[in-house]
Formats: sequence, structure tokens, C-alpha cells
Amino acid sequence: MSNRCHAPSKWRHNGEMIDPSKSLALTMGDPCGIGPEIVAAQWLSPQPLNAWVVGDPAVMVRAVSALAQRDPQAAQLQVVPHAGAHPDPQPHLIPVWAPPDLPTGLSTLPMGLIDERAGRAAAVCVRAAARAVLAGQAAAMVTAPLHKEALSAAGEPFPGHTELLQALVTPAGQPLVPVRMMLANPELRTVLVSIHVSLRQALEAVTFDNVLTTIRITHESLQRMGVPHPRVAVAGLNPHAGEGGLFGDEELSTIGPAIEAARGLGMNVTGPLAPDTVFMRARHAPDHPGEFDVVVAMYHDQGLIPVKYMGVAHGVNVTLGLPLVRTSPDHGTAFDLAGRGLADPSSMSEAMAVARQLAGA
Amino acid sequence: MSNRCHAPSKWRHNGEMIDPSKSLALTMGDPCGIGPEIVAAQWLSPQPLNAWVVGDPAVMVRAVSALAQRDPQAAQLQVVPHAGAHPDPQPHLIPVWAPPDLPTGLSTLPMGLIDERAGRAAAVCVRAAARAVLAGQAAAMVTAPLHKEALSAAGEPFPGHTELLQALVTPAGQPLVPVRMMLANPELRTVLVSIHVSLRQALEAVTFDNVLTTIRITHESLQRMGVPHPRVAVAGLNPHAGEGGLFGDEELSTIGPAIEAARGLGMNVTGPLAPDTVFMRARHAPDHPGEFDVVVAMYHDQGLIPVKYMGVAHGVNVTLGLPLVRTSPDHGTAFDLAGRGLADPSSMSEAMAVARQLAGA
Repeated sequence: MSNRCHAPSKWRHNGEMIDPSKSLALTMGDPCGIGPEIVAAQWLSPQPLNAWVVGDPAVMVRAVSALAQRDPQAAQLQVVPHAGAHPDPQPHLIPVWAPPDLPTGLSTLPMGLIDERAGRAAAVCVRAAARAVLAGQAAAMVTAPLHKEALSAAGEPFPGHTELLQALVTPAGQPLVPVRMMLANPELRTVLVSIHVSLRQALEAVTFDNVLTTIRITHESLQRMGVPHPRVAVAGLNPHAGEGGLFGDEELSTIGPAIEAARGLGMNVTGPLAPDTVFMRARHAPDHPGEFDVVVAMYHDQGLIPVKYMGVAHGVNVTLGLPLVRTSPDHGTAFDLAGRGLADPSSMSEAMAVARQLAGA
Repeated sequence: MSNRCHAPSKWRHNGEMIDPSKSLALTMGDPCGIGPEIVAAQWLSPQPLNAWVVGDPAVMVRAVSALAQRDPQAAQLQVVPHAGAHPDPQPHLIPVWAPPDLPTGLSTLPMGLIDERAGRAAAVCVRAAARAVLAGQAAAMVTAPLHKEALSAAGEPFPGHTELLQALVTPAGQPLVPVRMMLANPELRTVLVSIHVSLRQALEAVTFDNVLTTIRITHESLQRMGVPHPRVAVAGLNPHAGEGGLFGDEELSTIGPAIEAARGLGMNVTGPLAPDTVFMRARHAPDHPGEFDVVVAMYHDQGLIPVKYMGVAHGVNVTLGLPLVRTSPDHGTAFDLAGRGLADPSSMSEAMAVARQLAGA
């Protein structure tokens, strides 16, 4: 990559070496949503943070001002000249790098509205952060929420982060790198066979190859997350997992054989299990040890309904299968809250913790 | 009905009139599952119970013996001669009526195994209880779990209680009475557009008529449950409720128009809402007041995954649209636990409470 020449050296902080290759690159998200605020709020802590923001400095100033209405600890900004060049981490000091090609005037856009410039800015930051991670300037990227309609208004052909990153890391002319979305919170992890397609198309996506690939990516990712022998549950597609072929046969024709194949590769896989109880069985709480470490879900809502049921404050979205670590909070731009310093930054904090765990940073 | 002549008179208990038409008829369920135990366990309480069992007396004796291993308060049985003829309610005394046509030897069947006689017995009790309620011999019926494969082995063409009762109450030669399954626990209520069909068939069942009928039955039933102005949420079918037609168009072509029609009839209906967050939004807890009183779900697992996620101990299944009140616990026969006095009777107790509420008993 052309910007490898900027790969920074190590800094010393409180007698310890700060390794910029262990830093996190945080994208600001859609400038008109809560993204900039929940990013800036990470610097409310008195601990220095080995992380830097990919975003528009004026937008981040606006976010800091919004936080300052609520919390006198709100941070200050330090603009840095290139990706990864964040200075010796200081408490309450936010390093911000503005990638090239950012639209101008972003900080004057009204909060809470869809704007094509906002969508374009969000996409520019995601691509810049990904390239920085691939170049070794950060260990992982954590993305604040963007708005799908703003992205679309900007002419981006991708419905979200996952697809944008999938295209970015796929070599020209090659088939798309298979990636999967994992949603995780302290109680439940789920990985989805398909995401942003109609339920009708999702049925067609339940193929032997797609299910087996999902199980394999899930198994390998869980191992990277520190689970040496992951207990993978696979949900059925139909009610009661088809009740032996009575209500649909995908369990017999497709999902069951994919599970058998995964077992043949040495993975610990159980299923296909009744969808309406597998998430209850996998739920892990102090009084309820989960039977499984992760559930492979056959479509978007099968997995996301249970993982969001108790709230999204601690949910993390992880894109599995990419050649880089990317996590994000499990919520959207919350236009109704944006600009008021009220957004809960917990999910962003969890996403950063999971990113560090996955990247060993 | 031919057995109206048996409609019992009122009894006096502790100076109060006991009204048999306010009693609950409880079916024993599959004799080889936990049904008989969770029914018998209702009489562990020192309070007399205005309820009676439709079942096999020897099976109920076996259930009482199983409970007696754990609890010295286990009850005794009193066999009653006809439906509704339960005596003055006494604590720890279980009135049992054996309907005609019960298979013999039921109490010698091994626990925890599928048996066609067990399936037949369960079906006989369900039909007998329904006829008793229709004849005014009980206010409502509460059904203990039966086993779908045992029912099928007995030659029953119905996958479960709901379909069996739907056929029973439909006049010969008429189209089936529209019924819907509601699952409810103290946090969440959901009503399903379709139940025991493949997901592929469930997509076809999302029609204007089916959605509107579901909303109507839901609205009317909630009013009967004491919610004068029910706030009904309707889930979409596709991820993000189709994102404006991007991921499927059923929200625009079918679900939206049905919601509009329901609003035109004066109902308070919101939707179609993103399926992955509507249940979270409707969840009602002390620290989280729900935004809606009930969620209409487009298919079996969409509604049942969230309602079961936190456990089934307090879940209740209610069949809406029948000309009688029928509830049941939200769990199965639990063959692995059966016969050991270990099954949790809470969901059965909740089902009885909801039945009394719906029937005004």
C-alpha cells in the first residue's frame, strides 16, 4: 500500500511503549447521527485510549460540544496529519485524522436528516479506516453507525458496512470474499447465513455451501475470540426445524448435510435445532449457563430478534471472514437523539473491547 | 348438545357459592409426558381449586405418586361420573372425569416414549373438554402438552391442539373458522399469522385477508383480556420491514394495506415495523415499559423466538378466534423429565390464570 511509508514508530506513555499497530481506528459514522458523539464519548474516561478517529474535525468538534452540555469532562481534539499518526495518548485528547476526499461543510448539515454529503463522508471514512488497518496503521477498525438511505443517496451501491468492506477487500475480477455478520452481546452470539435480502431470497440462500461456509467461518472466528473448542448450534429454517420433514425439508436436504460435513472436518456442531428454542438454550447468564457458544441463524431476523430482544446497549456487530478486524455497535444513527449528547456510548465501548480481543490488541 | 342435561347446579364452599360454570376443565395431555404431573401439581396448594381434570384416573394416580416422592402435600383423587360434576372443591382433592373412548392400560405405558394409545388418549381428552366447555359445564379449558408424533401415530390428521379444536368447532361443510395462536408471558404477547407450515408456505400465507383477520382477532381478544384500547404493533416480513421495498415488497403490497384497513375500522395499529426491534420495543418489564400491548408476527418463529427467549416457565399459549376459551402452557411433553415429579408447573398455573381472565371465571 502506498501509505505504508507513514507506518508510525512506537511511543512511550507512562513508561510503557504505546504501539500504534495496536491502536483502533474509529470511524465517525454519519455526521448527522449519533456516531460522532458516541465516538467522542470514549474519551470521557480518565484513561488514555490507544485509538484515533477517522472523520471530519469540525464534525467531531460539534460532537464534543454536544457532550460538553452534559459532561464537563468532554475532550479536546488534536488533528493528526496522516492515518495512524496519533500522538502519545493523553486522557481527554482525541486524535482525528481527516481522510482525503471528505466533502466540505459537513459540520453545518442539520442533525437528524438524511443528506447525500453525510452518506458520502461516512463511506469515505470507512474505506480510509479499512485501508489503514490493511496497511498496519491500526490493529482493527470500529465503525460508528451510518445511515443506509444517506449512503444510497450518495450513490453507494452497498446497503451497509458489511457489503462495502466485502467489495473493498475482494481483488478485482474475483468472486466476492465470503463474509458473515456476527451479532454478539454478553448473553448471546449469532452468525447469519444471509443479511440484507428479502426473506424470499434468504430462503434461496440456504444452500449446502452457504451453510457450511457460515459454520466454518463461525468456528474459526470463535477460536480467534479465545474459545478453543466452540460449541456451534445451527438453527433450522422451518418451525420445529421441520418436524422431520412435515413442515419443510431444508433441514433434511441441506442444513443437516452441511452440519455432517462440518462435523467431518472436526467441528463441534449441533443441529438443525428448533429455531424457537435454540436461542433460549444458547443464552448465557449468571443463572443460566448457555448450552452453546454461538448459534448459526438461517436468516437476518431469526438471529437478530433474540440478540436485540433485551436491548441493544451492549450489542456488537462483527464482520467475520474479512482479512481485517471490524466491529461496530449494534444500533443505528438514532436521528431522533443526535446532537444532544444523550446517546448511550456503551455499545461502541463493547465494540472496541471485542475488536481488541479479536485483534490481540 | 346432548350432555346439556348434565349441567350441574351450584355448590356451596366456605359459605360461598361455587359455580361449576366458572370451573376450568384441565386435560391431562400425553400420559407419557409431564402433562399429568403439572396438572396434579396444581392441587399442591392449600387453596381449593374450582377445576377438574379430563383424563385417565390411573394415569393421574401415577402422576400423584410421582409428585409424592418430592412433596408430602401431594393430592388424592376423586373420580367423578360425568363432565363438570366435580364435588365441593377441597384442598388436595383432584376431581377426575374419564371421558368415554379412552384407551385402556394407559397407566402401564412407559414414561417418555411415543405411543399411539397415548396420542389417542390425549386427543380424546381434548375433544371431551372442548365439548364440556361448549355445553357450559366449564368456563374454559386448559390443555396440558400432547406429543405431536404420538398424535400422528394415533391417526390424527392435526399437528396440534389448535388445528384439532379449529376442526371441532367448524360446522360440517363450512370453511374452517379462522383461529390464531397467541403466545404470552408477563413481558410480551404475540399473535401469529400462520403456525405449523414450512417457512416457504408461511410466506404465501402473508395475504391481505390473513393479516387483517389476525389484527382483528388480536384487537378483539385483547379487549376481552381487559385492555380497552389495545396498542397493536405489526411486524414486517422482511429485514428492516423491507427498507422501503429494497428487501422485499410484502410490506408495501400486503401488510401496509391491511394495517390501513384495520385503522379504518378504528383499531390502534402501528407498522409494519422492523422485525428485529419490534419485540424489544414491545417488551414490558418494570424498568422498561413496552410501547405496545401485543405484536402481530408474520410467521411462527418470528413471534416465538422472542417470547421464548427468556424461558418458557411463564409462557402461555392462547387459541384466539374459537367460540370457547382455551389456553395451555408454552412447553412440550418434556419426555426426559416425565414421571419424576421434577417438572415445573408454573406455566400451567399461568395458563389457568389467563383462562380465568379471558373467561371471566
